[in-house]
Amino acid sequence: MIAPDMATMLAFVFTDLDIGPEGLQSATTRSVDSSFNRITVDSDASTSDTVLVFATGTSGVSGDEQAVAFQVALDSVMLDLAHQIVRDGEGASKFIEIEVTGAASDEAASTIARSIADSPLVKTAMAAEDANWGRIVMAVGKAGEKADRDSLRIVIGDELVAEHGQAAAGFDEARATEHLRGDEVRVLVDVGVGTGAGKVWTCDLTHGYIEINAGYRS
Amino acid sequence: MIAPDMATMLAFVFTDLDIGPEGLQSATTRSVDSSFNRITVDSDASTSDTVLVFATGTSGVSGDEQAVAFQVALDSVMLDLAHQIVRDGEGASKFIEIEVTGAASDEAASTIARSIADSPLVKTAMAAEDANWGRIVMAVGKAGEKADRDSLRIVIGDELVAEHGQAAAGFDEARATEHLRGDEVRVLVDVGVGTGAGKVWTCDLTHGYIEINAGYRS
Repeated sequence: MIAPDMATMLAFVFTDLDIGPEGLQSATTRSVDSSFNRITVDSDASTSDTVLVFATGTSGVSGDEQAVAFQVALDSVMLDLAHQIVRDGEGASKFIEIEVTGAASDEAASTIARSIADSPLVKTAMAAEDANWGRIVMAVGKAGEKADRDSLRIVIGDELVAEHGQAAAGFDEARATEHLRGDEVRVLVDVGVGTGAGKVWTCDLTHGYIEINAGYRS
Repeated sequence: MIAPDMATMLAFVFTDLDIGPEGLQSATTRSVDSSFNRITVDSDASTSDTVLVFATGTSGVSGDEQAVAFQVALDSVMLDLAHQIVRDGEGASKFIEIEVTGAASDEAASTIARSIADSPLVKTAMAAEDANWGRIVMAVGKAGEKADRDSLRIVIGDELVAEHGQAAAGFDEARATEHLRGDEVRVLVDVGVGTGAGKVWTCDLTHGYIEINAGYRS
């Protein structure tokens, strides 16, 4: 690429495990679904995102016998790489984990988590280190999945921010802000309708993003 | 609202036409679908967007007899109001019309147009006044609707930028840039698979957006 400003991603992972193409494909798909396919910097996909996993077999260790250990190791490598991409996101100042629970299905939970993670209003509130849970509620709403307003629960860091769809009784904004001042932010949203759960990782939206993506020709 | 930073929209339209609730509702729904429901500043919905249309009947003019004239007038008022919201978008420096043609259906065309309009990479390229059609192709791709890469056609202003999925033969970047320097930008994308068409209006993404949405507490 001459100007790889679309965050084109090429990931190459190698193992010396003795594992056939089918086993390797299945382990890779499973790993990618819980790592690379769960990160978003700005919702924009690259035209050439690629993850390739190679197995040389030179260790002589059988993939069939070590299937679980291999999956755990592969998951860990993939997740680490995926998180590094988010941390390196254009203009990112914070690494943000969005966890959604209580959704109608795991898929619904991921859709809601992605809606929160991709919301420019949520991302700018994070950049502002503001526990603006109204913006989170908005992003839950626009996701179009089932959610119960009256049992909605939002936790930022360890601080219970909202409960039953309103500001939590003992909500201490200073404590939430303290957490948001760090560079690792955790947001948990329970939408109160089922047992579906899912996580997405993203970053905040800062002047740096505009600088990089609007200033690349000047 | 104490801090209406979510661009909450309340629109009130009045007419002295003599028209009943059903006729008014149907005309309003039709108007809203081609105006307010086709604008996007940042993809984020407000929790309280409202459009109310009132008919007093005092003119004595029958809504049944003037149905077409009323629809035309209502469409025009609604579109004007909707466009004003985009022009007033947070940090907006350009008003952008995205028209998609050649889609599998009108709905698919709108989905693709919205994907382009909401793409932070497209919006920052517009702010940069850069005819970056690669970013437009990316946004077509991530929309998830049918599109034919090899017959994709992109026009910016009056300049044919891409054709058959590649840079157009006589593409003059200076002419495209000239158009992008104005504050009214038109982008036409033909995805080459059918006869579906749709328009969406949006604005560019600038430092002003970050200023307003991340700087509201300082």
